Amino acid sequence: MNDADIALIHRLADAAGEVIRPHFRNLAAVETKDDASPVTVADRAAEAAIREILSAESPGDGIIGEEYGEDRPDAARVWVIDPIDGTRAFIAGRPLFGTLIALLEDGIPVLGVIDQCIARDRWIGNATGTTLNGATVRVRACPALAGAHVGTTSPYMFDDPAAFQRIRTGARDVLYGGDNHNYGLVATGCLDLVVESGLKVYDWAALVPVVTGAGGVMTDWAGAPLRRGSDGRVVAAGDPALLAEVLATLAA
Amino acid sequence: MNDADIALIHRLADAAGEVIRPHFRNLAAVETKDDASPVTVADRAAEAAIREILSAESPGDGIIGEEYGEDRPDAARVWVIDPIDGTRAFIAGRPLFGTLIALLEDGIPVLGVIDQCIARDRWIGNATGTTLNGATVRVRACPALAGAHVGTTSPYMFDDPAAFQRIRTGARDVLYGGDNHNYGLVATGCLDLVVESGLKVYDWAALVPVVTGAGGVMTDWAGAPLRRGSDGRVVAAGDPALLAEVLATLAA
Repeated sequence: MNDADIALIHRLADAAGEVIRPHFRNLAAVETKDDASPVTVADRAAEAAIREILSAESPGDGIIGEEYGEDRPDAARVWVIDPIDGTRAFIAGRPLFGTLIALLEDGIPVLGVIDQCIARDRWIGNATGTTLNGATVRVRACPALAGAHVGTTSPYMFDDPAAFQRIRTGARDVLYGGDNHNYGLVATGCLDLVVESGLKVYDWAALVPVVTGAGGVMTDWAGAPLRRGSDGRVVAAGDPALLAEVLATLAA
Repeated sequence: MNDADIALIHRLADAAGEVIRPHFRNLAAVETKDDASPVTVADRAAEAAIREILSAESPGDGIIGEEYGEDRPDAARVWVIDPIDGTRAFIAGRPLFGTLIALLEDGIPVLGVIDQCIARDRWIGNATGTTLNGATVRVRACPALAGAHVGTTSPYMFDDPAAFQRIRTGARDVLYGGDNHNYGLVATGCLDLVVESGLKVYDWAALVPVVTGAGGVMTDWAGAPLRRGSDGRVVAAGDPALLAEVLATLAA
């Protein structure tokens, strides 16, 4: 990962946003996959636009995309793409969905972007830090769950609903909805914790560098680093001191 | 209600937005009321800015505000103000909170604005129609709950949780979070239904003209028009044909 990759990920996010914006609140474009999940023409067109740039600029890299699958997934460098994360918000006309792009080196996410092309929030994170629209952001202190402002997309997303209820009742409050945007808010010191489950690699890969670059931690529910093949349960805590209590609460 | 009132409500929303925007993601400004609800300096300053304009422009009108209380609430014309609705989203840095302003004539909301000053979505509704950023919007057809895309801020807001569970399991899907923004999306034909409870007059008064001006319906859970003293349970349906099934489901 180098400065050229950062410039490239900006270009990728720019290209996705250009493709997506005309479809926002233009529901004629909505189609439905066989599995009935809400997926749009914009979703596919955005991933195609990203892949086109990558194939020209970094032809040796692998790609894992939510829409068009895997291409050299075992390469040393792999780009992981979710063109529109938060499709339910997108098709409802809510400007809180994001394009997620990560660069993995040897399986580790080293660069990630959360780009909210309507809300115009772009987080980029790597080992040297995280920025929001070019300004450095940092997590805030929050060492105890009782003081934590928590974000989660839906209380009905959990494969262990009781675990979420323990988090909910132990936290200061919970803000629902938001998808990937909540992780950007953790990196910005506006939220303290996100707990979710059911996430695929393209859902979480870009979030890890954003959260950790800002000083936070992101793991599975056992406290282990997220990897391909992880079980989809994720915790993102702004204050690393909060993690142990959260993991204990989830496991209780 | 006349064109001057429409011009005035734009000015009120403009003034509130000017006051609020500098506080967004500036958490140093957050204070906490005695009841521990998240309320900000911005909230109070925005209502003060609105009241200052009203006292100069419409000194005979009454005012009911979320922050500063009632002033001639029995006047023929009464302005109802929630300077920041969705304060939990606001303090989390999520750009989905709104300034809500309604004009009541003889207790009936005849003009309302939902102004999202960061997301830059402004809905204005009255008997002649509803606009989003100046463009006319309309609800969409959705006569059955099984096909409805539903929005609601939190499943834990309900004084009758079982009633919400019947809606949730009967609907096509539910999008959480959003506060007042969801009602604007109903008016825009992007969502089909919002069901909530616990709303005060300043929470719902501005929403009614926005939803009904676009062709929708908004009532309490018994199907009665919302009035001061209503029990805080509200339904907003884009397609009026959907209302009967929703009311029956809530009452089942």
